[in-house]
Amino acid sequence: MMRSDAARNRVKVLEAAEAVLDEQGLSARMDEIARRAGVGVGTLYRHFATKEALYQAIVTARVDALLNQAARLRATADAGSAFFTFFARIVADAGRKKALTDALHGAGIDLKAQQTGQQASMRAAITELLHDAQRVGTVRSDIELPEVLALLRGASMAAETGDYPGTVLDRSLSILFDGLRSEPGA
Amino acid sequence: MMRSDAARNRVKVLEAAEAVLDEQGLSARMDEIARRAGVGVGTLYRHFATKEALYQAIVTARVDALLNQAARLRATADAGSAFFTFFARIVADAGRKKALTDALHGAGIDLKAQQTGQQASMRAAITELLHDAQRVGTVRSDIELPEVLALLRGASMAAETGDYPGTVLDRSLSILFDGLRSEPGA
Repeated sequence: MMRSDAARNRVKVLEAAEAVLDEQGLSARMDEIARRAGVGVGTLYRHFATKEALYQAIVTARVDALLNQAARLRATADAGSAFFTFFARIVADAGRKKALTDALHGAGIDLKAQQTGQQASMRAAITELLHDAQRVGTVRSDIELPEVLALLRGASMAAETGDYPGTVLDRSLSILFDGLRSEPGA
Repeated sequence: MMRSDAARNRVKVLEAAEAVLDEQGLSARMDEIARRAGVGVGTLYRHFATKEALYQAIVTARVDALLNQAARLRATADAGSAFFTFFARIVADAGRKKALTDALHGAGIDLKAQQTGQQASMRAAITELLHDAQRVGTVRSDIELPEVLALLRGASMAAETGDYPGTVLDRSLSILFDGLRSEPGA
């Protein structure tokens, strides 16, 4: 088991790395990340031997955070709005991750293989939230998972370009949600 | 002015190149393209000195075809459906162009600069079709161009991945169109 100060350091490093990466993209340096996290460069390298390992850990942590939010929404939020809240959260997250994606591509890293388990969990979480919303009648009952995933992918890819102000993304999502909500033939 | 048999050859080469590229992607060869077009390799190179020039001509021709369809729709189709027809046509075209995009990226070609004029024309065509549809009341009057372009970009990017069967893309677009059609607050 990881000692608790080591675990705390790991979290601090991941948070600092995300912040530095968001600001500086590909030029982010390990010593700057260590400085920002308030740890020594040695500590940083003990947790993440390479920049690539650090990037992968950031992506894993981001998806874990999304999965935690899905579980929280199912436990506490109105089933009618939880699906839409989660959809919007994924798109917002995509809008933040361009620097990370660029860095990963720049480093020649393809995360697909590593993320298979997380992708299956994400798919399961979206399915549950979709079915909850359909049960209470806020999402059209004839809508199936594949089209929801396709719409989510498109919205996330558009957000990830970084070309759209937040208001435009909000208005786009609201149009999309109206389509998911409306009755067939309405 | 281009002699008419030269113009015909150019069209034949572009059509053959598109077909070969769709089938073979990056491995498409100039001699195979010439063979398929029924012209000599010398003729092919007289029209397009490099593979890159050929690829750029294909992209330009595709956008021109879209612009022609926009003009045709405005002239002949019901204004209420023309906007949706054109939106769907652009997304379908994006779904076909992955091989070409890959080839261009593989060749290190960035078409953005070359296409500026065409992009402005495309934007103008979409704006006209949107306003026509809003005037006859099939598209919500509070919807503005930026969100339409963002939705179109997202749908096109998702289609371009090639990961979705046509039925899923159709169902996704139909959801999106319902959102564009519905009245605010409905």
